[in-house]
Amino acid sequence: MKEAKWIWYPGDFEADLCWRFNARRYERDVIIPQMCRPDRCSPTVSFRRDIRLNCREKFYIEADGKFNVMVNGRYLYGCKDSFELEAGRYRLDITVHNENFLPALKLASESVVSDEDFLVCCQDRHYVRPATDTGFLNGARPSDFRLPTRRAEFVRVYEKDGRRIYDFGKEIMAFLQFTLDADADVFVCYGESEEEACDYENSLQTDSLVCKKGENRAPLTKGFRYVCIESEASVSRVSALAEYLPHRVQAKLSTGDDLLNRIFDTSMYTLDLNAREYFTDGIKRDRWTWGGDFYQCGLMNLYSFFDLDLYKRTYIALIGKSPVTHYTNHIMDYSFLMLISLREYLEHTGDGEFVRFIYPRAKELAEFCVSRADAERGLIEGREEDWVFIDWGTGMNDNEGAVFAEQVLFRAAMTDMAKIAAWVGDEAFSRKYALWAEKIAANLPMFWDEERGGFIHSIKNGRRNRKFYRQDNVIAILFDGCDAAKKESIVENILFDENVPKIVTPYFKFYEFEALCRMGRQKEVFAQIKDYWGKMLELGATTFWELFDDTDQGVEHYGMYGKKFGKSLCHAWSASPIYLLGRYFMNVSYVNGEPVVGEASPLLGDFEAVLPTRGGSLYLQCRNGKYVKKELRLDEKAEARI
Amino acid sequence: MKEAKWIWYPGDFEADLCWRFNARRYERDVIIPQMCRPDRCSPTVSFRRDIRLNCREKFYIEADGKFNVMVNGRYLYGCKDSFELEAGRYRLDITVHNENFLPALKLASESVVSDEDFLVCCQDRHYVRPATDTGFLNGARPSDFRLPTRRAEFVRVYEKDGRRIYDFGKEIMAFLQFTLDADADVFVCYGESEEEACDYENSLQTDSLVCKKGENRAPLTKGFRYVCIESEASVSRVSALAEYLPHRVQAKLSTGDDLLNRIFDTSMYTLDLNAREYFTDGIKRDRWTWGGDFYQCGLMNLYSFFDLDLYKRTYIALIGKSPVTHYTNHIMDYSFLMLISLREYLEHTGDGEFVRFIYPRAKELAEFCVSRADAERGLIEGREEDWVFIDWGTGMNDNEGAVFAEQVLFRAAMTDMAKIAAWVGDEAFSRKYALWAEKIAANLPMFWDEERGGFIHSIKNGRRNRKFYRQDNVIAILFDGCDAAKKESIVENILFDENVPKIVTPYFKFYEFEALCRMGRQKEVFAQIKDYWGKMLELGATTFWELFDDTDQGVEHYGMYGKKFGKSLCHAWSASPIYLLGRYFMNVSYVNGEPVVGEASPLLGDFEAVLPTRGGSLYLQCRNGKYVKKELRLDEKAEARI
Repeated sequence: MKEAKWIWYPGDFEADLCWRFNARRYERDVIIPQMCRPDRCSPTVSFRRDIRLNCREKFYIEADGKFNVMVNGRYLYGCKDSFELEAGRYRLDITVHNENFLPALKLASESVVSDEDFLVCCQDRHYVRPATDTGFLNGARPSDFRLPTRRAEFVRVYEKDGRRIYDFGKEIMAFLQFTLDADADVFVCYGESEEEACDYENSLQTDSLVCKKGENRAPLTKGFRYVCIESEASVSRVSALAEYLPHRVQAKLSTGDDLLNRIFDTSMYTLDLNAREYFTDGIKRDRWTWGGDFYQCGLMNLYSFFDLDLYKRTYIALIGKSPVTHYTNHIMDYSFLMLISLREYLEHTGDGEFVRFIYPRAKELAEFCVSRADAERGLIEGREEDWVFIDWGTGMNDNEGAVFAEQVLFRAAMTDMAKIAAWVGDEAFSRKYALWAEKIAANLPMFWDEERGGFIHSIKNGRRNRKFYRQDNVIAILFDGCDAAKKESIVENILFDENVPKIVTPYFKFYEFEALCRMGRQKEVFAQIKDYWGKMLELGATTFWELFDDTDQGVEHYGMYGKKFGKSLCHAWSASPIYLLGRYFMNVSYVNGEPVVGEASPLLGDFEAVLPTRGGSLYLQCRNGKYVKKELRLDEKAEARI
Repeated sequence: MKEAKWIWYPGDFEADLCWRFNARRYERDVIIPQMCRPDRCSPTVSFRRDIRLNCREKFYIEADGKFNVMVNGRYLYGCKDSFELEAGRYRLDITVHNENFLPALKLASESVVSDEDFLVCCQDRHYVRPATDTGFLNGARPSDFRLPTRRAEFVRVYEKDGRRIYDFGKEIMAFLQFTLDADADVFVCYGESEEEACDYENSLQTDSLVCKKGENRAPLTKGFRYVCIESEASVSRVSALAEYLPHRVQAKLSTGDDLLNRIFDTSMYTLDLNAREYFTDGIKRDRWTWGGDFYQCGLMNLYSFFDLDLYKRTYIALIGKSPVTHYTNHIMDYSFLMLISLREYLEHTGDGEFVRFIYPRAKELAEFCVSRADAERGLIEGREEDWVFIDWGTGMNDNEGAVFAEQVLFRAAMTDMAKIAAWVGDEAFSRKYALWAEKIAANLPMFWDEERGGFIHSIKNGRRNRKFYRQDNVIAILFDGCDAAKKESIVENILFDENVPKIVTPYFKFYEFEALCRMGRQKEVFAQIKDYWGKMLELGATTFWELFDDTDQGVEHYGMYGKKFGKSLCHAWSASPIYLLGRYFMNVSYVNGEPVVGEASPLLGDFEAVLPTRGGSLYLQCRNGKYVKKELRLDEKAEARI
């Protein structure tokens, strides 16, 4: 007998959990729900299946919500949790109504179970295949889902300036636990840094709790390493319950270079903490899903966990339900990256089923972008309500008019949507997007500055804004904004020019280093990876930061957005060494879910590595610059799921 | 000081309440949520206002949900229910997050209160004016809203065939109340008819309750006149709490003809019971909002309550949120009637504010309809998932292909959308819809049958389905499907031909009688109104029925949809004498909210009437076929609201 599964309307789990998840962001006592449109699940869904019974069977129903059962168009009265049917042919229609949470169904008889063979609609009469658990829920009903937890202990406790500080040794995402010897109010001050945990006025994360004698648990997870707990009562047995997403497999890298190994391990740990219900930007802040951060996580995911469910959950939540009324996260470039990511995902994983499922949503996003562009030249500018982000850093707050990097990304998004549309058989739109990409491409040369040998930042009201930034030029290299000769010129004249403002976010270091690797500059990148991420380790980082500027001093490192501890010290986008090392130094690519191994970079020296694959893992051993072992190891659990 | 109002995202109250309201439909123990797509409120909304304070002020906040307060872009920490600001200019941004119900805000300081001067967005950055209570909520927070109740007493109790029957004298929509002398299980059987209340197996409405000693109340309102209560315990103090929508004014008609007066009064009572949170179809069944029923209620509303809020609530709920993925209630003709209703509403009430608000949604529905039509000829056919309803009755289950009535309604909807689009200044779409209407009009003559002097029912795969029904031909008269000569021919050759299947629903009697009145056949209509509705009264109706066929006998009258008591005996669409008498016999029209009084029909004899107007009421006195008094009485409460 097959196993009955919870089934629900596809996409609704991801949408419903996402805004709830994003609303777990607090700044001290202030809730900060997501700033883009939250999409809800339908409160009512109908499940259908045509069945044929050879003998009388009893059907057991579990529903998350109130429900009704219709058999051949007639309601069954008095059906509490089971019903029986004689041999025969039937159309079963079961409608589940849940006022607050995701309506879901589980049904089983001898020969019929709820699974992908049912159909489901959200009362719109467009029946589609239902979604089911692929392992993430671990048997829980969808609306009860929480990540599993494991206990984390502090590694030392000490006094400093009259504050008792618990140090968990490294950043964690956890519910704090402690025991009180009496009922009392408790003030908890969390810190990613020791300074933040001790700064009761400025810490971004605090809890003011009314507690009972005995064991207490903070109501929400926080991202922290240090914590101070103030109470009239005596506090003991401090620990934490850390939430985690189980991984089928995790990448490993062991080289002769300890710093490189630590950079890789810390990158993996940073990404792991941010690989949760969804890929998030940071575990202290924002604890939100962001399209650009996700773009990079999508690539890192291949070389770290190869967790396609995690990718898909995040994609579905981010792209949202119809209608598209704003850019992904309101950010123009993030929308383009969402579309580019989908083409890359298809090529890397070969998961056509997901691409077919999500294509209508991607197309709607593409159509939204096109509706905002100049129909004649194809170029696009931000409107008042849009955010033209690109990056944090010098020059990046002047993004009015047609910003060059945006045009390049838009062209790439259109090219990729042309490919995806062709792949799903939507030829008319494939042609439309291909033509649009050509239109943009024809206008990119006007951003070129022959004298400087690079691209200017923007053109506003017909006037060239003759500023040169790494960001625009890096994007031109990565997303084919120009020919090979211009790319070489960019490397020489912009990227190797120290007078061009340096990049301070790991987010754009990702793109800059990838661009340099594509241009064959692995040697420079290798040194810079060790320098940039190495310096964070030198400063005691246990996870990598949202932004790092080596000219900052002391507590300056923790400030951002005008707040003393505004910076996230555990930010997914800073885990890019995972990707850069895997792709450009181990020289592994993923094509249709299979790893393709090229020549290892001699810069890595002798090393051993494990990389995940769709069906298991790949063990690599490199000696004297040559791979001496490349073993694909199939994973039983993974096989069962694929 | 102005009064603070609850404010929320416009349209979200109507959407959120609607699917909850529609899910209060039960058939015995079976919940039957709505069968069209439910639309939810946003769980997160942001309210904004730019203010200038001349001195320090304290702001008090009441929010339905968790909230945060941002002042000039900075979050306020520790803001539980109030905050203070010094003199100065500020931008207030208050975000309310409610996981389960409608997020709403109430705020007050000395000089600032929450009202229509705020802006609101659902995190999409498209700020619009918030909705506020216009009196309907009576001060309650939106998510707490329930209609007010008043006590209803049974008028007699008697035994029959061993059943103890409580008769409330007339149909009511109420919570049943009773007192028990001990804890006990209780089975309640409700009936619109005595037969239904006594038929424990077949009644559509039952309650199986686990009750405590003392006073008990059924959890949901039911539509009933009779009730039987079975329990091991002794039942006493039976009564009911009837929900009602308060009316500012109610129409009255007093003629010398008692039967006519009773028809009018019973129509008013029938409509009143179905005029609730929304206009519903019936109070026993379906307790749902339906576009076609609503179309007629919209016209009756003018002549009964002139409750524009009720009209607007229902319109917003029915037309739904973006995107349109199916016809209104899945019914093609109902979608057209929704669009036609809006043009009529604008002309009758002059309420341009609502039309501007709802225009984008109406346009989306119009675009949906157009997307389903034949681009060349403009004609439209139902698809598998669509419901081409027209009416219940002979021939109406054969609606495949291009049904004539649908084409006429589609043409009218396009013509009306052309007018509405022009009115809101959307010239391009106005032209588009006008051209589409012309295209349809050019193809209507092919449905004409010269030999028979009427329109055939449909054309399927190019073949004429040469059936003649009143429905198609009535629609042709009412919605300008042909010229005056053809209309005359229809009256003579179809409507006055007794061999053409008669209409059995009050729904289509409405259209048939209106068509005849338009053709000057008041005399025939007057007799038929008294005959058709008079016969229901003869059979003891206290409210008018969903369907009435005078050839039925006894309990046959109560059956429908294959169920013994499937028929609704209190159906809004059967209240049309309100409209027919007001419009075509009192000869009152509404133009831009003002009543325009023509010549009274001598058929009414001497009479007095009160009709509602936007600002009060109109008192009419007619003697010897002439109006001798036409007094507009302004309503203070109404004035204050307009």
